[in-house]
Amino acid sequence: MQHPVSEGVLQRPLEFTLDFFGVGEHHLRAMPLSSPTAVINAAAASTNRIKLSTAVTVLSTDDPIRVFQQLATASALAPGRIELVAGRGSSTITFPLFDYDERDYDMLYASKLALLMAVNTDESPTFDGPHRNRPLRDLTIVPRPEEPLKIWLGTGGSPNSVHRAAELGLPMFLGILGGTPEYWARYGHVYRDAWAQAGHPAEKADIAVAVHGFVAESGDRARATYLDYEHRMMADGAAELGRPVPARTDRAAALGAGGMVFVGDPNEIADRILHLHGLLGHTRQILQMDVGGMPQRDFLRGIELLGTKVLPQIRAELGTP
Amino acid sequence: MQHPVSEGVLQRPLEFTLDFFGVGEHHLRAMPLSSPTAVINAAAASTNRIKLSTAVTVLSTDDPIRVFQQLATASALAPGRIELVAGRGSSTITFPLFDYDERDYDMLYASKLALLMAVNTDESPTFDGPHRNRPLRDLTIVPRPEEPLKIWLGTGGSPNSVHRAAELGLPMFLGILGGTPEYWARYGHVYRDAWAQAGHPAEKADIAVAVHGFVAESGDRARATYLDYEHRMMADGAAELGRPVPARTDRAAALGAGGMVFVGDPNEIADRILHLHGLLGHTRQILQMDVGGMPQRDFLRGIELLGTKVLPQIRAELGTP
Repeated sequence: MQHPVSEGVLQRPLEFTLDFFGVGEHHLRAMPLSSPTAVINAAAASTNRIKLSTAVTVLSTDDPIRVFQQLATASALAPGRIELVAGRGSSTITFPLFDYDERDYDMLYASKLALLMAVNTDESPTFDGPHRNRPLRDLTIVPRPEEPLKIWLGTGGSPNSVHRAAELGLPMFLGILGGTPEYWARYGHVYRDAWAQAGHPAEKADIAVAVHGFVAESGDRARATYLDYEHRMMADGAAELGRPVPARTDRAAALGAGGMVFVGDPNEIADRILHLHGLLGHTRQILQMDVGGMPQRDFLRGIELLGTKVLPQIRAELGTP
Repeated sequence: MQHPVSEGVLQRPLEFTLDFFGVGEHHLRAMPLSSPTAVINAAAASTNRIKLSTAVTVLSTDDPIRVFQQLATASALAPGRIELVAGRGSSTITFPLFDYDERDYDMLYASKLALLMAVNTDESPTFDGPHRNRPLRDLTIVPRPEEPLKIWLGTGGSPNSVHRAAELGLPMFLGILGGTPEYWARYGHVYRDAWAQAGHPAEKADIAVAVHGFVAESGDRARATYLDYEHRMMADGAAELGRPVPARTDRAAALGAGGMVFVGDPNEIADRILHLHGLLGHTRQILQMDVGGMPQRDFLRGIELLGTKVLPQIRAELGTP
């Protein structure tokens, strides 16, 4: 496995003062990074400023106590830098792997998220949700982070999830593959409305956005190849699972100003992010660049441009440090 | 939490060319290192020669696929340096914590160990043991280490475990708290006999020994305090679990040549290890030194003496590099 720490990938964002590095959970030969918390512990030992997060932890099929303990252990090395995005998972592969019934998809997620939140704020919580056969009580969950971990609710955009995040008072991490900026702006409004209705203070609502994207000197050249990599990622995954390879759909529109794949030169990417920010007011923008076997030199150069050319424009425009 | 990486503890064995660093699993405020695989991933990123192992993973109450994946991820950073000691656990605290029934103690261990071994050698094993509700088949476990991980069967000395290790062809990791060298020599004979009966080649039988122990310039001074630390560890653990604090028994005999607590000056410790080796032929000797809040400077000095004064004597005597 190419490891983000040994391959130097993680060092790149640091050089260029990016704020955040996220590590997903996958169970494919083509994407063998199955333990994001393991990578985050290695990254915590190798860095001293960047925030590190699972993105996402497939919580439905993991043990929330274990996930918390693994990340709390990382936070002993990297206090205040460890976060967690709890998702339901974009595929169902983890259910047979970890011996769960797919029909329990939502019950497992809701119950485990409640336990995760309880464990995060209470060293010795009492909990009796439906995913457990016996209640948890009078036991201690260690180690304890200095402050509770920041837990995001990760969603691909289901209406169910936006209301759950708002009701629970959780920041929302959007994993976006399609749609338009206007569509996601409406989704953000639904979140903020539900947030207010639940009685949470408006200024605490918090949205992160992860899109497929890439930055290169030449926007035209980047656009000419990125969708090939993206399709290859999806085709390889489907083939490995023995599923029909999805037909290559025309995603060219997604690359335009009305789409949600952010590929271009630094000025174009800064404009796309700022445009979306004007609509959605999100506080964090993630670009998933290294899809489908993109050559590492291109990916590393993309990180560099993001840090040196895109980020300064965003910070100047928004007046943030 | 004091973390072995950030506290520099892990760097000490490296300076002094020790071969192995093991990380246990505990769930107490006094011993908050609950995720040994998390620490091992951080250690893998911070070292380049020493072997790293869980010691032990409480396998009965963990998911063998997750444990394998976490350590296989570490082995992408530290090829050939990652090992795993699979134990049943010295306390039952993990059963209510992770929602298991204590009565399934042995079934869980046997079934999960079988799955762990299958996953370690086969990327896509078919498995149908009693700890799962549905069989595992046609799924891929990633990432893959370059070579299978070395899996030890960890035991405190139950007759059941010695036969299981031999029958499965697993190296045996003895966690020793009491008894005599002669007692453990007999235990070793039982293992080697059962090993031969199971048809395994004799030279592949492999025993590691972990004892409570400590090295200091003055053996007398070390012996005067070590048992206080050891008792404090046991008393703190019992108190935290709301259990009766065990009476302070007379463990002084354990410090003598007929006992199994290895506390002394470097020459004494070398003699004890060599004596045990003559009886048991073990290939690895672990000293658990940092018990009961021993001051870190004493512990670090103990590691230094182990590497600079004890190990050279062992290597010279046994003619090993």
